[in-house]
Amino acid sequence: MSARLIDGTAIAQGIRAEVTEQVSGLRARGVVPGLAVVLVGQDPASEIYVRMKGKACLDAGMHSETVVLPAETTEEGLLAVIDRLNADPAIHGILCQLPVPPHIHAEKILFRIDPRKDVDGFHPLNVGKVVLGDPTGFRPATPYGVQQILIRSAIETRGAHVVIVGRSNLVGKPLSNMLSRPGPGGDATVTIAHSRTRDLPALCRTADILVAAMGKAEFIGVDAIQPGATVIDVGTTRVADASRPKGFRLAGDIAFEPVREVAGAITPVPGGVGPMTIAMLLVNTVQAATLAAASR
Amino acid sequence: MSARLIDGTAIAQGIRAEVTEQVSGLRARGVVPGLAVVLVGQDPASEIYVRMKGKACLDAGMHSETVVLPAETTEEGLLAVIDRLNADPAIHGILCQLPVPPHIHAEKILFRIDPRKDVDGFHPLNVGKVVLGDPTGFRPATPYGVQQILIRSAIETRGAHVVIVGRSNLVGKPLSNMLSRPGPGGDATVTIAHSRTRDLPALCRTADILVAAMGKAEFIGVDAIQPGATVIDVGTTRVADASRPKGFRLAGDIAFEPVREVAGAITPVPGGVGPMTIAMLLVNTVQAATLAAASR
Repeated sequence: MSARLIDGTAIAQGIRAEVTEQVSGLRARGVVPGLAVVLVGQDPASEIYVRMKGKACLDAGMHSETVVLPAETTEEGLLAVIDRLNADPAIHGILCQLPVPPHIHAEKILFRIDPRKDVDGFHPLNVGKVVLGDPTGFRPATPYGVQQILIRSAIETRGAHVVIVGRSNLVGKPLSNMLSRPGPGGDATVTIAHSRTRDLPALCRTADILVAAMGKAEFIGVDAIQPGATVIDVGTTRVADASRPKGFRLAGDIAFEPVREVAGAITPVPGGVGPMTIAMLLVNTVQAATLAAASR
Repeated sequence: MSARLIDGTAIAQGIRAEVTEQVSGLRARGVVPGLAVVLVGQDPASEIYVRMKGKACLDAGMHSETVVLPAETTEEGLLAVIDRLNADPAIHGILCQLPVPPHIHAEKILFRIDPRKDVDGFHPLNVGKVVLGDPTGFRPATPYGVQQILIRSAIETRGAHVVIVGRSNLVGKPLSNMLSRPGPGGDATVTIAHSRTRDLPALCRTADILVAAMGKAEFIGVDAIQPGATVIDVGTTRVADASRPKGFRLAGDIAFEPVREVAGAITPVPGGVGPMTIAMLLVNTVQAATLAAASR
């Protein structure tokens, strides 16, 4: 029996439709949520992401601003752009597309963004608020998307054992904090595993819900899956594939074909967690605009 | 065979001796670390804690200030005291002894403390910094003390499976974030369990290191212990005991007598984690004074 396929694209579309409705409600009150995306240099993958984010904003009826700066922009110059956007009342969310060129300290830029506009949720103040369950904190888009996939696919987290493989600040850490909190999409018993974990497959086999977020192509095989478990694949790695027009294919951290025969439900790559990240970015921007409007 | 008894009092004394030496080094450079403790009302237990904290500061050569306010102090009045201490250059650490009277919002007070003086590590900015591994963040004293007990008792955390029972913002959450980070006293595979966890004893039996932090007297029995495991007991509950002069005894979350027959190492209550909290508070105050001196 093959696992239920979780359609992240469809879930993300549903969320984006909800966002569009919320934006229209805000516009009726004179508030147009605005997102500014800053891109330094000409990384082709970054250019695609930035374009997708801008288009998603416009589709939802939001204001979108893209600031493209040359690769030789100084740190001071970039900080000045952030300061300008921090002060701009038309902008409720700011994100700086990573990576930035090596002469710029990414942390210095990210921590300069006003925490109230930090819709990526990277600022330590937002990291802390998410741990504490403060509703004014922004949850980073990827773990937020994973939690929404679980909620909207009716996968019970309460009392479930969730094993998260990968302890990154972007995914593993915030997700473990979110899923172990009380409430819907929470109340799970959460284990965070990583490269130092002993006998990873045995640990993973104890998971009712397995989240793979290491970025190692097809690293997790069927020996790591409890029959019937839900498997969420956050990884996205380019793997050389001469049979594809672009010369590569996208692979997740899960060996998809064998695992789908054993799992109860599984997210594909692409079309699983990926589409959720832009949807959750829009959700965060609407949250920022709503909070800003309430504090006026 | 009986478990090795971990002597928290001795470990804490060692740390306090180190702090005394660091303070003397700072004083030689003209810096006297100062801790202000604010107490509202006359809770007898709080009065004891505050007195112990003040005495520990003086013993270490630090400046100590205790601000005792009447129970009818208004929130505004208390905020004004915090603001005064925030602005006082002789004070490097501020803590408000909890609980505060019910007409005062504890969060509002705690979040008013300058994060650079928040030696309790309760402010969301410090919570976030600890998650991100930022060395300028303050680790809350109790989980910090647990980590130091493990390090100073030569109990290897790297690759070990740590099960933490209790997901509080004070202990369980920060401890899980600290122990799963890379580095000494870290690199553990950490599971955070709580009241919603299914079959808690079976989960606990998979732990190489078990940390009990629920505050339920002797809740964890010998059926939850893997033979040879390290058992750290954070709980402290008063249990009625007519045979004691005070009419009560202190109990941990662990059923100490049966568990010590099975565990490899165990902390007692009292004399285990308890004495570590004041020691780590002093460590944090010295850290605050050192950072303040460096930024002058």
